Amino acid sequence: MLKLYYAAGSCALATHIVLEEAGADYSTARIDFAKEQQKSPEFLKINPKGRVPALVTDKGILTETPAMLVYVAQSFPASRLAPTDDPFAFAQVQSFNSYLCSHVHVAHAHRMRGHRWVDADDAHSIAAMRRKVPETVGGAFELIERDMLKGPWVMGDQYTICDPYLFTLAQWLEKDGVDLARIPRVVDHRRRMYERKSVKKAIAEETA
Amino acid sequence: MLKLYYAAGSCALATHIVLEEAGADYSTARIDFAKEQQKSPEFLKINPKGRVPALVTDKGILTETPAMLVYVAQSFPASRLAPTDDPFAFAQVQSFNSYLCSHVHVAHAHRMRGHRWVDADDAHSIAAMRRKVPETVGGAFELIERDMLKGPWVMGDQYTICDPYLFTLAQWLEKDGVDLARIPRVVDHRRRMYERKSVKKAIAEETA
Ligand SMILES: N[C@@H](CCC(=O)N[C@@H](CS)C(=O)NCC(=O)O)C(=O)O
Ligand SMILES: N[C@@H](CCC(=O)N[C@@H](CS)C(=O)NCC(=O)O)C(=O)O
Repeated sequence: MLKLYYAAGSCALATHIVLEEAGADYSTARIDFAKEQQKSPEFLKINPKGRVPALVTDKGILTETPAMLVYVAQSFPASRLAPTDDPFAFAQVQSFNSYLCSHVHVAHAHRMRGHRWVDADDAHSIAAMRRKVPETVGGAFELIERDMLKGPWVMGDQYTICDPYLFTLAQWLEKDGVDLARIPRVVDHRRRMYERKSVKKAIAEETA
Repeated sequence: MLKLYYAAGSCALATHIVLEEAGADYSTARIDFAKEQQKSPEFLKINPKGRVPALVTDKGILTETPAMLVYVAQSFPASRLAPTDDPFAFAQVQSFNSYLCSHVHVAHAHRMRGHRWVDADDAHSIAAMRRKVPETVGGAFELIERDMLKGPWVMGDQYTICDPYLFTLAQWLEKDGVDLARIPRVVDHRRRMYERKSVKKAIAEETA
């Protein structure tokens, strides 16, 4: 059975939703960031990077959202969550998710985790990074709005693993100070995602 | 035919090497960062993110290194560069590449491109980010050394798309100020990569 390590309000929500949608048999374990459990010796044995999500499988432990999303989709092919047999269509899915992971998520992380990139006591630089987040995250979402989100789903008519991942990062828009008026299609996508049973179930569990 | 947009010394080298190793029929186009060609109106039509690499295919344009590497591997299955049919083995490949893309590459980028995350005239913060790079990039490579690089190749006996990608980011170690003595296995991997014909050919073309 699969076991997902997550933290409430984190990027692990994407994998959580996809596990639901795939109909996977899985359990969850919550990591409390307030208690810094992600840095505990026990959790570092699960993921030496000290981050969530991590997915325990019977073959070993996986980390990194884009990898985990494809793993779940490919393990449950009947769910048709990723076009893994069509190299170009699959590459488009992967490209979208890689942009979320390497750019959008990272831009967002400069709001709360500036200490990753400068000395932890450098208040000036940490505040400077935080101030820039509305512009960097906003700019990335405007690019998604204009050039990437085909509609109604990210890849067009077919719902894929890109949708829960976009939805997950879009949870942070308000706190990131992004002007929602500039990204109406992203906001509409987020609203439609909230209506899905899988999404309701994953969020309910994470906020219980 | 495939066409790769690259810049000399950039992360595009990974895809360049993989195109060589796959035996693909491809051409290349060089983007000159010194002239800021990545931000020219012509190039923004190719990649609206204003970055390299970008791969023109007969079905459309792809961006994002992890997506492109899998695309090339999957399009040339005889090269056996990615275990796309084995969900767990494939997820390990993807997880490694996602870490390189979303963490290692990003940590490195704080040396030269700090203006992405703070105001461009904030010299204090930009210098603070640059100073931290030896520690952040070094820490990530120590994790790779200890927990990820199985040897002789990243995934063990089988050479995969992880190898050229690791090699590419390892090109930057000296300038990133990383202490090579702490990562002997990464350094040995880099040395063995230099011996490959595909690597020699890609580098020769990029530096010609
Ligand atoms: N590239 C990783 C990033 C994982 C990541 O940064 N997770 C955050 C939560 S959204 C985390 O665990 N942060 C805890 C910390 O930095 O201490 C992925 O996409 O899975
Ligand atoms: N996530 C992208 C990142 C691409 C990227 O940042 N490329 C750099 C070169 S290594 C670039 O084009 N920089 C130009 C700039 O920032 O203006 C990938 O892995 O392909």
